[in-house]
Amino acid sequence: MTHPYRSHTCGALTAAEVGQTVRLSGWVHRKRDHGGVLFVDLRDHYGITQVVADTDSPALPMLEALRLESVVTIDGDVKARNAATVNPNLATGEIEVFARAATVLGRAEELPMPVAGEQEYPEDIRLRYRFLDLRRETLHANIVTRTKIIRDMRNRMEDAGFTEYSTPILTASSPEGARDFLVPSRIHPGKFYALPQAPQQYKQLLMVAGFDRYFQIAPCFRDEDPRADRLPGEFYQLDLEMSFVTQEEVWETMEPVIGHVFEAFADGKPVTPVGSFPRIPHAKAMLDYGSDKPDLRNPLIIRDVSSEFTQSGFGLFEKIVGSGGVVRAIPAPGTAEKSRKFFDEMNDWARSEGHAGLGYVTRKGGEFGGPIAKNHGPDKMAALYDALGLGPDDGLFFAAGKEDQAAKLAGLARTRVAEQLDLIDKDRFELAWIVDFPFYEWDEDNKRVDFAHNPFSMPQGGMEALESGDPLAIKAFQYDLVCNGYEIASGSIRNQSPELMVKAFELVGLSKADVEERFGGLYRAFQYGAPPHGGMAAGVDRIVMLLCGAQNLREITLFPMNQRAEDLLMGAPSPAESKQLRELHLRTVEAPKPAATATTKLVAPDAG
Amino acid sequence: MTHPYRSHTCGALTAAEVGQTVRLSGWVHRKRDHGGVLFVDLRDHYGITQVVADTDSPALPMLEALRLESVVTIDGDVKARNAATVNPNLATGEIEVFARAATVLGRAEELPMPVAGEQEYPEDIRLRYRFLDLRRETLHANIVTRTKIIRDMRNRMEDAGFTEYSTPILTASSPEGARDFLVPSRIHPGKFYALPQAPQQYKQLLMVAGFDRYFQIAPCFRDEDPRADRLPGEFYQLDLEMSFVTQEEVWETMEPVIGHVFEAFADGKPVTPVGSFPRIPHAKAMLDYGSDKPDLRNPLIIRDVSSEFTQSGFGLFEKIVGSGGVVRAIPAPGTAEKSRKFFDEMNDWARSEGHAGLGYVTRKGGEFGGPIAKNHGPDKMAALYDALGLGPDDGLFFAAGKEDQAAKLAGLARTRVAEQLDLIDKDRFELAWIVDFPFYEWDEDNKRVDFAHNPFSMPQGGMEALESGDPLAIKAFQYDLVCNGYEIASGSIRNQSPELMVKAFELVGLSKADVEERFGGLYRAFQYGAPPHGGMAAGVDRIVMLLCGAQNLREITLFPMNQRAEDLLMGAPSPAESKQLRELHLRTVEAPKPAATATTKLVAPDAG
Repeated sequence: MTHPYRSHTCGALTAAEVGQTVRLSGWVHRKRDHGGVLFVDLRDHYGITQVVADTDSPALPMLEALRLESVVTIDGDVKARNAATVNPNLATGEIEVFARAATVLGRAEELPMPVAGEQEYPEDIRLRYRFLDLRRETLHANIVTRTKIIRDMRNRMEDAGFTEYSTPILTASSPEGARDFLVPSRIHPGKFYALPQAPQQYKQLLMVAGFDRYFQIAPCFRDEDPRADRLPGEFYQLDLEMSFVTQEEVWETMEPVIGHVFEAFADGKPVTPVGSFPRIPHAKAMLDYGSDKPDLRNPLIIRDVSSEFTQSGFGLFEKIVGSGGVVRAIPAPGTAEKSRKFFDEMNDWARSEGHAGLGYVTRKGGEFGGPIAKNHGPDKMAALYDALGLGPDDGLFFAAGKEDQAAKLAGLARTRVAEQLDLIDKDRFELAWIVDFPFYEWDEDNKRVDFAHNPFSMPQGGMEALESGDPLAIKAFQYDLVCNGYEIASGSIRNQSPELMVKAFELVGLSKADVEERFGGLYRAFQYGAPPHGGMAAGVDRIVMLLCGAQNLREITLFPMNQRAEDLLMGAPSPAESKQLRELHLRTVEAPKPAATATTKLVAPDAG
Repeated sequence: MTHPYRSHTCGALTAAEVGQTVRLSGWVHRKRDHGGVLFVDLRDHYGITQVVADTDSPALPMLEALRLESVVTIDGDVKARNAATVNPNLATGEIEVFARAATVLGRAEELPMPVAGEQEYPEDIRLRYRFLDLRRETLHANIVTRTKIIRDMRNRMEDAGFTEYSTPILTASSPEGARDFLVPSRIHPGKFYALPQAPQQYKQLLMVAGFDRYFQIAPCFRDEDPRADRLPGEFYQLDLEMSFVTQEEVWETMEPVIGHVFEAFADGKPVTPVGSFPRIPHAKAMLDYGSDKPDLRNPLIIRDVSSEFTQSGFGLFEKIVGSGGVVRAIPAPGTAEKSRKFFDEMNDWARSEGHAGLGYVTRKGGEFGGPIAKNHGPDKMAALYDALGLGPDDGLFFAAGKEDQAAKLAGLARTRVAEQLDLIDKDRFELAWIVDFPFYEWDEDNKRVDFAHNPFSMPQGGMEALESGDPLAIKAFQYDLVCNGYEIASGSIRNQSPELMVKAFELVGLSKADVEERFGGLYRAFQYGAPPHGGMAAGVDRIVMLLCGAQNLREITLFPMNQRAEDLLMGAPSPAESKQLRELHLRTVEAPKPAATATTKLVAPDAG
């Protein structure tokens, strides 16, 4: 029996099928009317086939009248194109199908946005008519690439001995970091489930339950205010955990997985070779790059030059260094021909970012310029240049102040200088591990020690370090994987010792009772034979975005919400029926006016 | 460098490693003290290795003192067991490891439940200490099997040309069937997201967006009252959709996927061969088996014998048939030696199920017994027996009444008779398609026509059928896949025509505006070129349960909630902080007393 819809897909026909009678179904992508000869590009998921109808074809009138994006079945004959009209860019470019009959399967109304072509279109239209938007070439291809990347991740994880386990989505509220989405319980009035911010506790419980190597392409949920680099609502991570491991083993296991995923989808762009990802201690990253997620495509290296200014004719730097501050230098190579405006604008930019300013030295043919060089003295400046390996036509910027602020400014300046001088090779992927993160940090707002990142991490040095009296000196077995200036993964070896856990929380002012209340399931589990374990989580959306070369997470997501956390296609969120609220033992409270106003601020600009 | 935790897993050592010095880490599964010689079964995810320590070993005192389920690293030498002590049931049964040193990695407190052995344990303890429960052999193996089944499903779907797409979890409330879980929006006061009961609308939107073959191992959420055969909260389905397909193509595509998954995990038990799944029309299933999810391992076939009783000395049946009712016969083969009690108890059971009773005829050596045979007359009864192909020692039950009630009783009786007579071969998997479901049904409560199953399904006969004036005669392109008496999948060809959709809803009293309001996203999409499409969804949990031979969904689920929808391990649901409620613009309402009492009824018995 002939298939009612198709003998071939729209990507299948080649010269080999010339002469065959075929049936195709698809969308009317484009029409070109050459006066009595109508060309229709018929499109489906697999490709595009050129369909031709002329006055000999009974299908002509109907095809002529049909709107773009209607779905149609074509019965016709495969004909070879002549040499002049062969399209080498199209899989089916050697042939065309002469239409004998056409049947409309799904008529299209006038379109709110075009599908063929890639013109920009307002986001609210694109999201409301996402089913049309998704037919467009780049977005359709991005989504397919996304599925392939995830499949590749899965396969590589399984090949590495990991097993995928699904952890619960309706779970307990967790005091881990961001805000939870809550789900009211109907059966238990006044109580709520929470959607997981990450499967952190469950994956650790899996290790305690003896499952050795877990992974999951895990949906995660955070009720955060819209941010340019994160979609509202849900996101996916490649989540994993291993038992009886050291951090080195985690890196050696995951570097091939992530590295090879990048290689497979880099489209020929260079990727840091697996086995040679740099392992950069956090402190060194902050010093050299002014960031814990450095873009290593940027060749500039920040240098601490504080010692050069302990005594200096440039009094400001001398004063900063004398009061415990630092001076960091950011090279600006080959800027001899740059105008004073270039340097001044960098300084203005630093001020606009809330910093005191960005000092600089210009140099042209060995001659220094600018107030710092003048006051510090050309001989001492030349010695500094020699120490930094800089040449006669290189400029130099300075970020000075308290160490963390100077480091941050230096990092931002490093990026900006490199962008302005076009020093970043965009067509490559530079991956590196950032390791030895600090375990604690100083919370200036509350004047107390707090966990720097993950309270579940194992402090390096164990109990001895925790009892040393200098918590801010303790490093954690905690690490990130970065790529091109983005954190793409984060992980740690976990603290699985109940005693160490209690001690670690004690130092941030939390009691054993607090630990039990906040992380009861996990803390209880650690009493009954917990193996050493650790793992990490990689941001799937971020990796896909990098590999697709997309500028916005919405370009690699099927049905994203807008920046106001609305699903314009399905109409979510929406008011509940009063019956539903009654069943959930809830009443909604009218929002106060200021809050209603505040929400308008949430229409933040996109990242792209 | 020696690995700090292990050179081998606990499942790796064989005779080939005899003489090697090894390091193992794992849980102390069992200890046997033979007076100065201590045997420790050391367990990890991969297996069990026997460790031996005697008075020569410095590790002895520590191992002796250590509690079961503590985690320990053993350094030792691999020795061959002598022939008498080789354990052929254990992968490592040829060797043992003589312990030279032992290091405790995670101490265990006194256990609330044992891990070794498979004794029954109260469910609340098992769920509260799920991390211990999951270490137990059967549950651990079930969970691993579950992951393998899902992996196998994924691979087979991908091999069949499907692509896995993840659809949103925070979405719109849908009036599809069961009760939604709601998620309050913080940004939009008084509005709510809903968790998807199934990705039904999204997968159809994917087809309209041109993605041809979708699948997903999809988490689904229904806020239903606890049922024996469904866990509270979330469950997983293998969800799929195809464009440009007929229902036959869906069956031909999915029969190999599901059938081969069953074959791969049936552990040698026979499975209905792929390509020969019976396709049983719904009406025939109701007639022959009294169920739309028949257990085909049961050899009994129900027969309609109404015509035999249009004139009968057994007045009750004559009266029932005369007033439009039916009489259905359920054979009870080889019951010549069964006592009167056996037959009477079947009748009592039918009454206890709310039916009028189950009539019967006994037969022994060709002699009939019982009032029906007597009144109907032995000659006519013998003719009936001949027509049904029954023999001289076979009994016969009768279910009589209105057709749907008689069919249902006959179905239940067919199962019960087969169980009592031990006619069901438990060690096989009988799969079949149930097809041609009715599109509409009569809603007796509201005295109106309603959708029988899925309002998204395509009515057979299209607009012509919808306009025929006899909606209850319309069949849908809708189908189930059943196995051993369970529905394991359900699907349909969808109604993608806006006109047909409006007409179909009109017949259940809903307007075009209702369609737009309830299914706005999908209805809008159908205006812009929708391809014919269809698909199905298979219950992952149910399939895993069948293949694991488990009696309860909690035996194949990692972290299930209890029947009161509580996660005892993580403590969910729990009260929200007042700050959270404020942010969500919600107030909780004290539950009225009767509701609080009603919840105690929800502690329903398990299926198993």
